[in-house]
Amino acid sequence: RAVREHGLFFPPDPASVEISTVGGNIATNAGGLRCIAHGVTRDAVAALEVVLADGTVLDTGARTRKNVAGLDLTSLFVGSEGTLGIITSATVRLKPVPPGTPRTFRASFDDIQSAGEAVTAIVNGEAQPEVLELMDAHSVQTVEEFYPSGLAVPKAAVLIGQTVGHAAEQIAHQITQLCEQHGAVEVTVAQDDTLLEARRLANPALTARGLRVSCDVGVPVGELANMFRGIEALAEQHGRAITFVAHAGDGNLHPTVEAEDTPEEHEAAERVLDDIGRLAVSLGGTLTGEHGIGAVKHHELPIQLSQAVLDTQRSVKQALDPHNILTPGRAI
Amino acid sequence: RAVREHGLFFPPDPASVEISTVGGNIATNAGGLRCIAHGVTRDAVAALEVVLADGTVLDTGARTRKNVAGLDLTSLFVGSEGTLGIITSATVRLKPVPPGTPRTFRASFDDIQSAGEAVTAIVNGEAQPEVLELMDAHSVQTVEEFYPSGLAVPKAAVLIGQTVGHAAEQIAHQITQLCEQHGAVEVTVAQDDTLLEARRLANPALTARGLRVSCDVGVPVGELANMFRGIEALAEQHGRAITFVAHAGDGNLHPTVEAEDTPEEHEAAERVLDDIGRLAVSLGGTLTGEHGIGAVKHHELPIQLSQAVLDTQRSVKQALDPHNILTPGRAI
Repeated sequence: RAVREHGLFFPPDPASVEISTVGGNIATNAGGLRCIAHGVTRDAVAALEVVLADGTVLDTGARTRKNVAGLDLTSLFVGSEGTLGIITSATVRLKPVPPGTPRTFRASFDDIQSAGEAVTAIVNGEAQPEVLELMDAHSVQTVEEFYPSGLAVPKAAVLIGQTVGHAAEQIAHQITQLCEQHGAVEVTVAQDDTLLEARRLANPALTARGLRVSCDVGVPVGELANMFRGIEALAEQHGRAITFVAHAGDGNLHPTVEAEDTPEEHEAAERVLDDIGRLAVSLGGTLTGEHGIGAVKHHELPIQLSQAVLDTQRSVKQALDPHNILTPGRAI
Repeated sequence: RAVREHGLFFPPDPASVEISTVGGNIATNAGGLRCIAHGVTRDAVAALEVVLADGTVLDTGARTRKNVAGLDLTSLFVGSEGTLGIITSATVRLKPVPPGTPRTFRASFDDIQSAGEAVTAIVNGEAQPEVLELMDAHSVQTVEEFYPSGLAVPKAAVLIGQTVGHAAEQIAHQITQLCEQHGAVEVTVAQDDTLLEARRLANPALTARGLRVSCDVGVPVGELANMFRGIEALAEQHGRAITFVAHAGDGNLHPTVEAEDTPEEHEAAERVLDDIGRLAVSLGGTLTGEHGIGAVKHHELPIQLSQAVLDTQRSVKQALDPHNILTPGRAI
């Protein structure tokens, strides 16, 4: 935020922008609201200073856009969750704030399948949004309860997006037309960030509501509708409500499983999340799009990664941290 | 090129597009003409199949835009020049061909310093080009001799660029105005790719002219003018002409040192290239922006990389290829 006054910004823009740090973003290769337009944190990191397990200080990378001298240690350390070394300094690539006034839009859908198909149509279309988020009815309602804005709760879901640049209005128009062609029942366009706020408030609102047992799986955008259908089936199968928000434009979902605040309920909810992870991976996706594996999901790794991949990752870890002193039992 | 008929393209677009392969692009993390707009090859690779030194077959990555499950082996293998494993299959991210008719422009400069300053102004400006290349007078003349196009040879250099999308004409106009403000003496705008062809023909023309002893150093764009001045000083100091083309928009230069076709002359020219590499690194840059270290530049690695970085890269290599059977003596 400190660079905004210089007309620049740090592109990834995680939903947790109010509380997250650049260091944390880099350690987890965080994603966020603007990744469809600008890529993930790794794409914005040019160079790092890292302290290895044995105390050696490394300077990786260069200040250039292109750099292929040797192995790309910078990309290896970004997202390694502290397992290979401790990042003590970073050179990041900022981008100029786009000119003009951004437009935000909100399109309501009566069924989630149509919303998924609208996302695919938008992403494959000519007019590209800067932000494209999805909130299901339950998460919209939860936000409205905690931070009332007067926005109507949809029957199934809303798509919330932003367009930027001189053509922001025209692009927003093209995208909302696509939404209507795919079954949007109500469309609103505004000249400020208000509509995005609801999305940013989803996490605090869900947290305030009590227990959150959530994950951040990702699927290819073309599989979003299948993913939504699969989650509905899992909710029914487990007899447990599953609500979600999504960085829809890049196929990254944050499902939350309802559960009472007891260890047994937590455990049961975690099993539902494991099933959601299996579903995402079966659709060509990932267990974690932007938050990392950490300790909580460590047991899920074999769902996505073969033994050969796990062994290879651990041999890299072993080479850099032979005594396993850096965040053991996490990430890999 | 096979995907063009589906309205898609592989974003990096190396200058050698007529002869290079996607596999080679990935092995070296190749750059190209459109990296200022779309990033480098690594940014376009989602997943790989790799055969390790011991015959193990790995599937890295996922088909999603975001994926932070474990270490990023995909990025590690991209650009590793075959030192860690052999890439046997790749999943790449294609992009839709932009709508509208692209505009290409060409701006001539009487001094190289002004051309460098124009590049910095364009990159920092609001209107962003898809391509921004620089050719010095000598390389323009060489291309004209081999593939006459009737284009005037500039006193010092030309900037050649392309803009795309519905606003291509307007963006081109803003950029050429910036060029004129920074001393361009002649500006041409065309509605096709003709002006870019001269750039693509630079390598074959310089090769046809005889000996090429060249490198592909990179510097931060803001240092381009300093780099040009430094190269002029080195040419004078060594009493040897240095000509260059550049992916100016990302600060990636291809200097070529003139030399007779004898081993002694080659050797002398290589020493000039070493000095150019030192100059680039001293400006915060890199020995190689897009081609890799290979065998030829292997001796230059310590110019850019500290002993700690070299040791770390080699320990990763050692972990994955303990018997050093994969491309020994190259890249790292």
